[in-house]
Amino acid sequence: MISPDADFKQRTLDSFAKQPAMATLGVTVESVEAGRVVLALAHCADLTQQHGFLHAGMVATALDSACGYAAFTLMPAGAGVLTIEFKINLLAPARGPLLRCEGVVTKAGRTISVVDGQAYQFAPGSSERKLVATMTATIMTVTGRDDVRH
Amino acid sequence: MISPDADFKQRTLDSFAKQPAMATLGVTVESVEAGRVVLALAHCADLTQQHGFLHAGMVATALDSACGYAAFTLMPAGAGVLTIEFKINLLAPARGPLLRCEGVVTKAGRTISVVDGQAYQFAPGSSERKLVATMTATIMTVTGRDDVRH
Amino acid sequence: MISPDADFKQRTLDSFAKQPAMATLGVTVESVEAGRVVLALAHCADLTQQHGFLHAGMVATALDSACGYAAFTLMPAGAGVLTIEFKINLLAPARGPLLRCEGVVTKAGRTISVVDGQAYQFAPGSSERKLVATMTATIMTVTGRDDVRH
Amino acid sequence: MISPDADFKQRTLDSFAKQPAMATLGVTVESVEAGRVVLALAHCADLTQQHGFLHAGMVATALDSACGYAAFTLMPAGAGVLTIEFKINLLAPARGPLLRCEGVVTKAGRTISVVDGQAYQFAPGSSERKLVATMTATIMTVTGRDDVRH
Repeated sequence: MISPDADFKQRTLDSFAKQPAMATLGVTVESVEAGRVVLALAHCADLTQQHGFLHAGMVATALDSACGYAAFTLMPAGAGVLTIEFKINLLAPARGPLLRCEGVVTKAGRTISVVDGQAYQFAPGSSERKLVATMTATIMTVTGRDDVRH
Repeated sequence: MISPDADFKQRTLDSFAKQPAMATLGVTVESVEAGRVVLALAHCADLTQQHGFLHAGMVATALDSACGYAAFTLMPAGAGVLTIEFKINLLAPARGPLLRCEGVVTKAGRTISVVDGQAYQFAPGSSERKLVATMTATIMTVTGRDDVRH
Repeated sequence: MISPDADFKQRTLDSFAKQPAMATLGVTVESVEAGRVVLALAHCADLTQQHGFLHAGMVATALDSACGYAAFTLMPAGAGVLTIEFKINLLAPARGPLLRCEGVVTKAGRTISVVDGQAYQFAPGSSERKLVATMTATIMTVTGRDDVRH
Repeated sequence: MISPDADFKQRTLDSFAKQPAMATLGVTVESVEAGRVVLALAHCADLTQQHGFLHAGMVATALDSACGYAAFTLMPAGAGVLTIEFKINLLAPARGPLLRCEGVVTKAGRTISVVDGQAYQFAPGSSERKLVATMTATIMTVTGRDDVRH
């Protein structure tokens, strides 16, 4: 995929850095390409549910950000990004220690984009990985609204 | 709706208290009835995205918990609750100051339950409220698994 | 809810009449109000799956139409309606003999509307009804496209 | 993927043949592998909506069947298959002339399977194809119920 904005990578990193929720949860950027963003999240006891797994909402948060920013890379400079809706399927308990969340644009539209995401968990140094969740997100390109900008 | 477990309220509160993620995000219990759970979340800068709204994932986290626990109230004692999947539609930016997340069981099945959730924002003392998100969650009753218990 | 188009009812009936799929499946209009449309579908052996229930896709088709037209009633004259996505939960087998599909607008936006739908089955003359499916649909208002008009 | 049932292919074809809805809509089987089923649907004026495109519900019906049968191939002999829920994103108008619907199992569980589907349209003899819809379906393996069998 090709972005209409040569500066899409820096623009995406700058917007990500403005999300306090990402810092609070410890989500970091692994890679930003045109139409594909990968985020990482380390297992953290503060973000677990009653069985000691990462709360489904935390997986959803990281996946939603990966999906939203994947769409954002293909938007024109100055546009804002909003998630209209997403669906997540939780396939396995998120036990950690590391979670990688990847969002890939399936369709980039002028107003509406559809992005598919996958969350894998793995151990550092291991080549094994386990799919723990999949997401489909519908993302809107917003222009001309002062409260929704990059 | 009627719970098969006379002690469902305390059982639900106990399980909720074991979720570190709820404390981390500041989610609290407003009410627990058979088939209906209401949680509350105060706007908090640490949980916002780049436009200053509550991150969609935070709204999803609170709504998922409300939906999961609504199903949990109708489960037999000793059962565990797992979210299989959910879909969330984000209808308006979550500006705060307060968010109320309500989960109501639409269908309680032996294995699979379907729960609908709504998130409203409002100001203390005001009678106005605004619908910011809706969710449909598919929840599983888990028995006989040591790693998934109330 | 109030439609910006005084003629919304006739406009909706006219559009529905132009859908060959509705005639093929035997879907009929029960009522059209601003923000709410009810369609009906009789059980028909030609539309069943291997267990003799109405195929999930048939329930989805009628519910999607009810949801899309519910949003359509609130659109300005001349606009076209497109379903961006929907999710359906199937709560009980659709055994018939009659299925009523109701779509109600949850949020009417300028570009994006969210509509919730419910499908009930019942027998003629009986006051009992059973919820067999729920839907949430995201609907787009389309203007300025010659191939997508009322 | 490997099926626990050596006879999965014939079992799937037999079940498909028992779905009157598939014959009514003109859906045919292109291929059946363990964990993957491809169905085909020709554009047909009787199944269109008001703009002349295939009705979204028809695309959903064929995709749901492809997803359900993909899960079915991995079930033990004697099990029944039920769709619990699905979500579909409609990416482009289904203009035809041919639609190919592919369901691939993402996770095969003992009780719950998750299947992802894609619908492509193309012209006979052309190597071009266009993605018109994607689906994620949650499918249940049903045993011990007389009304839900292969």
